[in-house]
Formats: sequence, structure tokens, C-alpha cells
Amino acid sequence: MNDFSQYVELLGRNARKAAFHLARLDGATKVAVLLRIAKAIREGKSALIEANANDLKEASKAGLAPSLVARLILNDKRIAAMADGVEQIAAQTDPVGQVIEGYVRPNGLRITKMRVPLGVILFFYESRPNVTSDAAALCLKSGNAIILRGGKEAFHSNQAIVAIIKTALRDAGVDENAVQFIQTTDRNLIPLILKQDKYIDLVIPRGGESLIRAIVKDSTIPVLKHYTGNCHIYIDAATAGMDEQIRNICVNAKTNYPGGAVCNAVEHLLFHKDVATRLIPQVCADLAKAGVEVRGDAHTRKLYPSAQPTSAADWDTEYLALTISIKVVDSLDEAVAHINEHGSHHTDAILTSDLRAAEQFTRDVDSGSVMVNTSTRFADGGEYGLGAEIGISTDKLHARGPMGATDLTTSKWIVTGNGQCR
Amino acid sequence: MNDFSQYVELLGRNARKAAFHLARLDGATKVAVLLRIAKAIREGKSALIEANANDLKEASKAGLAPSLVARLILNDKRIAAMADGVEQIAAQTDPVGQVIEGYVRPNGLRITKMRVPLGVILFFYESRPNVTSDAAALCLKSGNAIILRGGKEAFHSNQAIVAIIKTALRDAGVDENAVQFIQTTDRNLIPLILKQDKYIDLVIPRGGESLIRAIVKDSTIPVLKHYTGNCHIYIDAATAGMDEQIRNICVNAKTNYPGGAVCNAVEHLLFHKDVATRLIPQVCADLAKAGVEVRGDAHTRKLYPSAQPTSAADWDTEYLALTISIKVVDSLDEAVAHINEHGSHHTDAILTSDLRAAEQFTRDVDSGSVMVNTSTRFADGGEYGLGAEIGISTDKLHARGPMGATDLTTSKWIVTGNGQCR
Repeated sequence: MNDFSQYVELLGRNARKAAFHLARLDGATKVAVLLRIAKAIREGKSALIEANANDLKEASKAGLAPSLVARLILNDKRIAAMADGVEQIAAQTDPVGQVIEGYVRPNGLRITKMRVPLGVILFFYESRPNVTSDAAALCLKSGNAIILRGGKEAFHSNQAIVAIIKTALRDAGVDENAVQFIQTTDRNLIPLILKQDKYIDLVIPRGGESLIRAIVKDSTIPVLKHYTGNCHIYIDAATAGMDEQIRNICVNAKTNYPGGAVCNAVEHLLFHKDVATRLIPQVCADLAKAGVEVRGDAHTRKLYPSAQPTSAADWDTEYLALTISIKVVDSLDEAVAHINEHGSHHTDAILTSDLRAAEQFTRDVDSGSVMVNTSTRFADGGEYGLGAEIGISTDKLHARGPMGATDLTTSKWIVTGNGQCR
Repeated sequence: MNDFSQYVELLGRNARKAAFHLARLDGATKVAVLLRIAKAIREGKSALIEANANDLKEASKAGLAPSLVARLILNDKRIAAMADGVEQIAAQTDPVGQVIEGYVRPNGLRITKMRVPLGVILFFYESRPNVTSDAAALCLKSGNAIILRGGKEAFHSNQAIVAIIKTALRDAGVDENAVQFIQTTDRNLIPLILKQDKYIDLVIPRGGESLIRAIVKDSTIPVLKHYTGNCHIYIDAATAGMDEQIRNICVNAKTNYPGGAVCNAVEHLLFHKDVATRLIPQVCADLAKAGVEVRGDAHTRKLYPSAQPTSAADWDTEYLALTISIKVVDSLDEAVAHINEHGSHHTDAILTSDLRAAEQFTRDVDSGSVMVNTSTRFADGGEYGLGAEIGISTDKLHARGPMGATDLTTSKWIVTGNGQCR
């Protein structure tokens, strides 16, 4: 373990030094660096595909599930999309230096609250290699150094992407430790790096709940959790004339992402009892036709007998698959209570024509994104207009919901006087 | 320990339920509740003084330091100030419901980012009883439930203040669990309550560094740290004609708070070598005259021989006393590096007439408050115009520097459509 102790300390110290350097860069320099990285990604295509082939070979040897292999693949289109993503981040407004508040106090002190980089970010993520370039670009844009720990399956691909980024940084005269990649997949390193609170300002873990829980437990650094989503759609009593819209939204929210394996897919539908008879048979038939396994409570099964019975565990389950469970509720209050109890505070929607129901739902459901008359699939940084996202925070602190470059900044109070004493 | 397990779970569950209730209150109701609490504090003066007498008796038995006893005392003036504080918080703009951002996407989705209460806050604090009413009022204003854990020395005083608040809450028809007070000073409870992440959204500890470190280590709930301050003033080369201002600011920053026992007092002065000969003798003489023990590096002692020699440990020490240490530096860069290395990222100031030096210092010093030509003692929620403060965050996440009611909120994305699918 001694080696890892020294290694994590080195990663931290290097990152802190790079962060000091990054915080001093002006916006034009950061844009130039990002455009250089995008160009290098396009030009490095064959090296990336070669490294990716190593990962795919190991994945096939290890018998990785086809849906995971699909996420892992780098091809011409995906590499071009990675470069596009970096260019889009380059084109965003620079969050650093923005004045959040500013005023003069009665004693003449000028008070300014200004956005500044957070410093050093430690980022855990899973199998999609494009997350590597997205995360590095978002951190560079916001003036932060990043330490990357990607999924084991994508190790060679991620390593190749970081090598390209580092070359571009060096060529631009920027400290290449702005982007560091942990050169081992050994899990024993994790508890050690999570104690480097002297150097690291924030941990962002994206991945399974058990990984995130382990990180929270071990970390003395603040953690912004990105749990996956147990999302709901509640279909209200006041939905006359909305049948087609409701059918479209429910099917879209479940099936729009291949296999439903995404955090903003809907997992549970709650129907108000007054509309259950009218809507459940049609919505269930649509879902079944789209290849979804439908589960339901007793009331649902009476209206749609092909539904499988739900067990208590269903309501707390994020399927991440083409499975959905359906419950009939007596009231909006019951729907809200169910969602706050069983949901993951990620994204939940109401379908209604009743303004007061919409207002009550958006006020009372304690989730990062609360939607009215649209698909939960829109909970996404790109769809919200943030450019790329580093993840979707299910935390309430600092940032909630889709996180972009601005969420990777903190603020600094700048107080200017001319000799004032207290 | 079994009892504590049940007790902390109960505290958490009660608070979560109260938080749901508080989040639904409109602003006028919250103002009315706060004004009722202020009135009840004024009317409860004799009960408060009686409870406080118990604490003072125990403090005297325990031989508590006079400076701590002084903080503990409740008298007519302090009780009136507590009530005034609650009224000032009542008069603030309600942060809940404020729209931080709002726009329409090309597909017609309306996106709104709105401030909402955080939920449940667990607050650790020390001996001053007025913090109890300030913290409770800030949490009520921002729609949060609070669980209070005050200093052992102020146990009876805090209990009496909370009893008054609870009566006022009940009289106003508000869930009295909005404000809960931990009814034991047993430290074994602490690690257990720090695991109630199901119910508690944020821990704010104010106190000694060792307490805060222990909390960070044990907590699975996000912690906003309020370390005390190791603050600096750097006196730049470009200070011609500023002698009197410099002398006033240095003495004010060190001695304005009785005994210097406050986090925003200055602990270290760094003089640029070009002005050391001119300024060190006068500033040191002023400080000594104000009762300050002056320590200095070799260069300082040559210019002011009565200074005591500094040891390496001095530079990392927050004295919280009438002691100061002085160092001569070769450059602004050296001053910045020293502050970022040895400071606590709380509050640091530069005294200069050079615009570029001021800009470099405010950009490069990595602290919550960075000041130009004024006293570090202004780092305070009241002085920044936030009304009361729940503390001064030395963290970078979520809130940095003095924290008011707005910093006790999070945001929620509200997305409204008319049938959009992805």
C-alpha cells in the first residue's frame, strides 16, 4: 500500500499546482486549448480505435453484457461526437469571473461575489469513454484540474484519450497535470485518494449506488453524488382530452433510450383512480407493444390482466431495463407521498391540465427535476441548454440536477475599501 | 447505545416531516411566526436569565475561562439583541421561490431553476446562546427544519430558548419539530446522528478544528465546514502615503474584537521588503501599545528588537488572542504562496495603491473573502448585508464565506411542456 500512498499524494499535489495555474488563464487561452484538444481527438482517431480494440477484446474475454459492450465501442461517429462535444464546451460562456452579486455598503465597502474555479476535482465514472473528454473539457473550461478514474472496462480507451489531451495541453503551454488519469484499476487505491482533502476539493462519483455509498463512507473530501434515477410519472385526474399525449409521453419516457438503461427513463407510473379505467388499458397495451414488461398492483391487473404482479420491492427498484410497474392511487397527495418515499429524488413528472395540481406537484415533490406534461427523458444537461454535463446530481448541496461548467465553480467575496476599520 | 439509535432516528424522522410542512408555508406565515418568536423571547426574559444562571453556576464550578464565561452570559441587552436579530431575519426577502434562471428551449419546454429549502439541517455550535435563536430563525426563514446541538456550557440557556421557540411555533400552528434541540450532551450520540443521511440534508459544525475533523470523518451527510480563521494582511510595496491607514487597519484587524478571540481577526502580517524599514517599527509600536504580543522573523526583529522570535509553527497558528507574528517577504508572489500554504482560506487582505497588485492578490489568494485596503474584521454576514449569519464557511462547496438564509436553500429544476417527447 505504501506505493499507493505516495502515488495519491503525488496526484493531489500535481493537480493542486495545475489548478493554481489554470485559475490564472484567461478565457481566450482556455478556448484555444479546448479547440486544440478537439482537433487532436479527430486526428488521433486511429490510435483511439486501436486502444479501444484492446478493451473490446478483454470485454469479450470477460463475457461483458452486450449493453455494456455497446457503451464501450469507439467508432468514427463517436470520436467525431467527442470532438464536437469539446468544441461546444469551448464555445460556452466562461463561468469564471462572473459576478453573482455586487453592491456598495453604507460604509463605502464595495462587495462583489465572483465565480472562481473550485480547484481540483476527482471524478469516478463508468464505461463510456466519451465521458473522459467531456469531463476534462468541462473542468478546463471552468479552470479546474481533474483526476480521472474511469471504468476498468474502458481503461485502454480512456488512457489513449487522456494521452491525446495531455499532448494538446503541453503544446499549448498549459500544465499537463490539469488532466490526470489514475494509472491503475486497483480498488485499494480508492480509500487512500479519498483522504487527500488537502489537495482535492470535490469528488464526483457516477456509477452504481454501492460504489457511491462506499465513496461517501471513505471520503473526507466533499462528495457530489450522482445516483441513478428511480423516476415516476403521475397521471392526474384532470386529463380529459390528453389520452394521446399521455400514451406518447409514457412510451417515450420508458423506451426512448435503447433498453431503457438510462437514469432519466421512467420506472413507475402512478394513475389517479378516476382515470385508471380509461387510461391503463391503452397505456399498458402501448408499452407492451413497445417491448416493455408491464407489472401492476391488483387494481392495474384488473384493468390489464396481462400485467405481472408487483412485489413490495418493485417500488424501490430502478429497473434500467424495459420493465415498468404501475400503481393506482387515490389522490395527488398519495402520489406525492409515494414518490418522496420510494423515488430517488432525480426526476418525476405529472401529466395534468389542472394548474393547481401542477403547482402542488412541483412544490411538493422533492426532486432535482420536476416536470409537467413532458417526458422525464428531458432531464439532461444538453436538453436544459447547459452544453455537456458532468453528471446529474441527486444531491441537494451545491448543485442539483444536470451539472454543467458553472456548477464546477465556487465563489469568492472580494471586498474593496479605502481604509475602513470596524 | 440502543437508546441513542432510536433517539437520533426519531429526531431525523420528526425533522423530515416538519421540513415537508415548512416548505409549503408562504412567506407571510413565516414572517408572522418569526415575529411571534421575537416577542416570546422578549417576554421570556426572566426564564432565560434563570436558565442562564444554572449554566453560569456550573461554569464557575468547572473553572471555565473568563473569556468563555463572558460569551455565555445572557442579560437584558443580549436578550433584546436576540429578539432584534429574529426580527431582522423576518424582514429579509424570502429566498424560497426565487427564480435563479428561467428560459424557453427551442422545443418549447419552459425551464425554471427555483430556490427551494434544503430540508433538514443539523447544526453544531459552541457557547454563545444567541446563536440558538439566530440559527433557528435563519432556518425557519429559508423553510428548513433544524436540529440543534449547542455547547455543553450553554445547555440550560439553549434549552430555555428552544422551549420559547417551540411554544411560539405551536401557537402559530406550525409543526414544533421545525426546531429540535438534542436533549443530551453525551458525545456518543454524535456518530449515530451523523449517519442519518436518510433524514438530514446538511451538517453545519461551528467549533474547534478537532471537532469538525471528527464530524467530517464520521458523517455520511454532507458537511459545510466552518473552521476558524488564520487570516493575513499583506502590506505591498506600493503604499506611499498610506502609513496612517495601514497602522489603523492592522491594529483594528487584530484588536477590534475583545482579546482578538474571533475568526476574522488578523494573525499574521506580511510586509514587502521595500516598505519594511519604514512601516514595521511604527506598526509594531502601535500593536504593542494596544496590548498585542508581537513576534517576528529575523528581519522584523532587526527593525523592531522587542519582537519575540517566531518558530515555524507560528505561521500555521491561529492565536485567537492578542498575539501577532510578522514576516518580511520579497514579493507579492511570495506573500500569495505563503498565504495559500499556511492560511485557512478564510479571509486575507492586501494594503496597496497598485491596481495590478490588488487584482493579482484577489485572483490568486484562494480564500472565501479577499480584501483590499480594509480590515479583515469586516468578514461577517451582517457587515456584508446578509442580515444574520449561520456561520462563515471555509468550504468551497455550496457556500463560501459568510452564510445567510439564501445559503440554506437548494434549487429545483421545473420543466413545463405541452406534450413534448424526446
